[in-house]
Amino acid sequence: MRILGIDPGLQTTGFGVIDVQGATLSYVASGTIKTTHLPLGDLPGRLKVLYDGIREVSERYQPEVATVEIIFVNVNPQSTLLLGQARGACITALVSRDLPVSEYTALQMKKAVVGHGRAAKSQVQEMVRRLLRLPGLPGTDAADALGMAITHAHAGQAMARLSEAGGQLQRRSHAMYRDGRSY
Amino acid sequence: MRILGIDPGLQTTGFGVIDVQGATLSYVASGTIKTTHLPLGDLPGRLKVLYDGIREVSERYQPEVATVEIIFVNVNPQSTLLLGQARGACITALVSRDLPVSEYTALQMKKAVVGHGRAAKSQVQEMVRRLLRLPGLPGTDAADALGMAITHAHAGQAMARLSEAGGQLQRRSHAMYRDGRSY
Repeated sequence: MRILGIDPGLQTTGFGVIDVQGATLSYVASGTIKTTHLPLGDLPGRLKVLYDGIREVSERYQPEVATVEIIFVNVNPQSTLLLGQARGACITALVSRDLPVSEYTALQMKKAVVGHGRAAKSQVQEMVRRLLRLPGLPGTDAADALGMAITHAHAGQAMARLSEAGGQLQRRSHAMYRDGRSY
Repeated sequence: MRILGIDPGLQTTGFGVIDVQGATLSYVASGTIKTTHLPLGDLPGRLKVLYDGIREVSERYQPEVATVEIIFVNVNPQSTLLLGQARGACITALVSRDLPVSEYTALQMKKAVVGHGRAAKSQVQEMVRRLLRLPGLPGTDAADALGMAITHAHAGQAMARLSEAGGQLQRRSHAMYRDGRSY
């Protein structure tokens, strides 16, 4: 399965693409989409850059699912509003290509990638580098986006283990029921 | 010129289309795009409904420009964040069709439509009905969206008058300058 992770931002949006085969993760691509060449006040122009950029990434790498970081209310309400609009544009670009979108918080990502929720940016970069066997540290935005993709891979593996355990449990209770009926 | 006005909302987004010929405004269409059939938590699904709905409206009515209401920070920060994402999806749908997007506040709209910024929703509905010679009152979301389109039409007319006055002023100062040189 190929996963596209997105770390949304109005000025810089990070993206990261990984492949998952069983327990093996492999790096495909990562980078940033920047809107800083446009005037601060040109919100429609910036949202178009994000939309076009994410569609281009998803056309080039053909992911099967996407994950986008859940954002929270900022101390500055105006920043919250701007980031909300950027995140809306990112998700819209993904669903416009009919990609299923999962959402995780930064806390969930840090737990999945580093092992605890209080990890610093640099720890996320280092663990992403190790997990994907990269030759160097990815940038912070790309690392967060790759981290979102890794989080979805782990969630998928956990779900698979759960449903496997559930299947075994069901098979066992079915056997017990059959046994019960036989004797 | 054909103008599409949008009143963005996560549950209900209003749209209104008008034609402008000189000082004459005429009604083309209006309505709402609703996402209330989807679960509250399905943000990607809701943003897709908004994106598809706005693209459908703009494909059907072929506006040349669009205007979207500027939103402000709400008392409830979580609502601000949700509305921000909805507005991001609306603007993204418009720029994905290469439509130029203008932005006005509700205050600017009420001033343009009713004459003062403290107008109630019902006054906006009534003035939109009169200005567009509608047989009945439009719904509040559609009225706000038509109001946004009317605001852009008025802004365009004001700009035209300004540039005409500027042109006359320039011609006059040019004449004075010529006179000055002649005598």
